Amino acid sequence: MKKFEEKTIRSEKIFDGKIVQLQVDEVQLPNGKTSQREIVKHPGAVAVIAITKENKIVFVEQYRKPLERSLIEIPAGKLEPGENPMIAAIRELEEETGYSTNSLSFVTSFYSSPGFADELLHIYITNDIEKIENPRAADEDEFVELVELTLDEAKQYVEEEKIHDAKTAYAVLYLHALERR
Amino acid sequence: MKKFEEKTIRSEKIFDGKIVQLQVDEVQLPNGKTSQREIVKHPGAVAVIAITKENKIVFVEQYRKPLERSLIEIPAGKLEPGENPMIAAIRELEEETGYSTNSLSFVTSFYSSPGFADELLHIYITNDIEKIENPRAADEDEFVELVELTLDEAKQYVEEEKIHDAKTAYAVLYLHALERR
Repeated sequence: MKKFEEKTIRSEKIFDGKIVQLQVDEVQLPNGKTSQREIVKHPGAVAVIAITKENKIVFVEQYRKPLERSLIEIPAGKLEPGENPMIAAIRELEEETGYSTNSLSFVTSFYSSPGFADELLHIYITNDIEKIENPRAADEDEFVELVELTLDEAKQYVEEEKIHDAKTAYAVLYLHALERR
Repeated sequence: MKKFEEKTIRSEKIFDGKIVQLQVDEVQLPNGKTSQREIVKHPGAVAVIAITKENKIVFVEQYRKPLERSLIEIPAGKLEPGENPMIAAIRELEEETGYSTNSLSFVTSFYSSPGFADELLHIYITNDIEKIENPRAADEDEFVELVELTLDEAKQYVEEEKIHDAKTAYAVLYLHALERR
């Protein structure tokens, strides 16, 4: 889909970080005029909706520096360069929660914020998880705490904005819709 | 919620653009070590789930330079500084679709990508919309085309990844869940 395509006239790299890159593109608009687009490049990410044998949903609480607060989110993490999203999902689930899984299904994928960023998020689901004795360590600058909630508790946390990010809001709504099938 | 708080040691502003700002914070982690956080600042955004009298959902197709493709999304736009989100939602609906509304309800809000950005998105819904004769003009560098779909068509577009962003995926799932109540 290329409707209203904006051709790149010039692209300036502003920042090349650990997680994101920032560039400013000068573009030609469909009416021939030019404009600037600020673009954040991101490697993409994965997230997992994991359900325990007790029918609880697995979340992690972690501090989100951009918001200066912590959030309760489904386990997630960014892709390593070239990494298969499903493998990344298994890895992040293990690192962040200590649960392993042998069966994972794709739910959906979406761009988090297509107006300024290219981050594509892949969401998986599993109800086949097991605690492992020696889980892979999380990244050394990552501090997360496991939180397990019923669907009703999770909906309450959405109301209270303890759960307040796109992927986790989607996950709670997805499980809500599943339950009503 | 301040669990695992990361105190700012130093904050360096990298870029100050039209839409986003980028800064790199040096932070003290809960274990006393330090790390860097790359943070994209964004003014926040609004989006509207608008339903026509014919029970179609109102979308717009637009080119998303970060993805080098167009997407079909619910009408949305960023907040002006200090702007009331509900007023912004009415404005964006009118500018992007030519529909006005006199009744709008809050659905939810969520952070698009809390790992690296502070963008908070507010979603509203209305089934009371009317075409206006002289709608406010869209931003001069914004080219959008109105697309009206039934819920089944929208679900099909999600499958085909023509609809492929977080807020619109959420909106389609929300309407799906509503229908099953």
